[in-house]
Amino acid sequence: MAIDPLGLGRRERHSLLNGMVGPRPIAWVSSLASDGAPNLAPFSFFNVFAIDPPTIAIGPGSRRGVNKDTIVNVRASGEFVVNLVSRELAERANASSGEWGPEVDEWEVAGVTPVASDLVAPPRVLESPGALECRVRQVIELGEAGRSTNSLIIAWVVRAHVVEGGFEAGLVDSDVLDLVGRMGGDEWCTTRDRFALRRPSSDDPAEVAAERVRPSS
Amino acid sequence: MAIDPLGLGRRERHSLLNGMVGPRPIAWVSSLASDGAPNLAPFSFFNVFAIDPPTIAIGPGSRRGVNKDTIVNVRASGEFVVNLVSRELAERANASSGEWGPEVDEWEVAGVTPVASDLVAPPRVLESPGALECRVRQVIELGEAGRSTNSLIIAWVVRAHVVEGGFEAGLVDSDVLDLVGRMGGDEWCTTRDRFALRRPSSDDPAEVAAERVRPSS
Repeated sequence: MAIDPLGLGRRERHSLLNGMVGPRPIAWVSSLASDGAPNLAPFSFFNVFAIDPPTIAIGPGSRRGVNKDTIVNVRASGEFVVNLVSRELAERANASSGEWGPEVDEWEVAGVTPVASDLVAPPRVLESPGALECRVRQVIELGEAGRSTNSLIIAWVVRAHVVEGGFEAGLVDSDVLDLVGRMGGDEWCTTRDRFALRRPSSDDPAEVAAERVRPSS
Repeated sequence: MAIDPLGLGRRERHSLLNGMVGPRPIAWVSSLASDGAPNLAPFSFFNVFAIDPPTIAIGPGSRRGVNKDTIVNVRASGEFVVNLVSRELAERANASSGEWGPEVDEWEVAGVTPVASDLVAPPRVLESPGALECRVRQVIELGEAGRSTNSLIIAWVVRAHVVEGGFEAGLVDSDVLDLVGRMGGDEWCTTRDRFALRRPSSDDPAEVAAERVRPSS
């Protein structure tokens, strides 16, 4: 079934892309307005994009040309914190995703606790299993001014926080973090159903092809 | 536990960021070299970033300044296809992730079938539950020349393909696509353990805070 994305209405196109590109990691972004008002909102247009230097990107949206608080704050201050969302925090992250004005304190709506960051002004979420303190490198506007579109915010990770026991002997423990991801529509997924695949180390592609194992299910 | 990412070795930093930012969606990218040689490789530095216009980004890496085939091909041709990876295809996608030269045909190593795309030259994977035909908008170098780093390739989705039954009444069926994601190290996850959370629709944040439901587990 071939689909022309531009032939769909905006809502259906959103549904198609969010349903096809998944599972998406969640950045629960803490930022501060110029007057110090705190903001907290989840975004699933998010990923890591480089290790050297450590670089992530988030894609907060604007509605009919009106930027969401996160974009306004991050553009003005150049700083934000990505807080990770565990299964236990999913309902609270979702509660903070309402479309309210800058006068609403989403920290209160979500019922989570701000704790001072090390290197940036916005606080991090105490209850999160991990957090990334970030400084903006570059902002790219992906759409046309005045329309509903998204900004691509590329940022460096300047500090990481992981809950006790979450990063040991150079490895992150997925059970300790218990992260959730976003799928299409209202769907979220856990990361509890995992499997391990070792990357091919052989110099001989024919050997890899011969050893390629198909799942039993 | 606070961690300075730049205080870690490259391998540990990679492990930290890949373990913290997850689950990551997988783009199994098909591209063509200038001489027509086909390339197929999976990347989990990938996400959708805008709906209007439909925009995705992938972050293929280079090793000590030598670009992987995908970057070379995509830079030269401006075209690629993102194929989705179902649980059934995970082993085959993984098999194609070896670090081989342009003379190796990863389609053969993976054991998948090329089928002509509608609008771009690189073929798509017949066995994939979905595919996105893409045209490059912009490439950003995230690191320093000559070092191991990543390119950020921002691209428009010009055509989507979904397996029969995968997109009906404007909704993607997660069970039909059965996508997998990447976690840290050798870990992958399925998207079979899902839950639904309705976004807050109330104009009253206090009401949302009161109704916020914590998971029972």
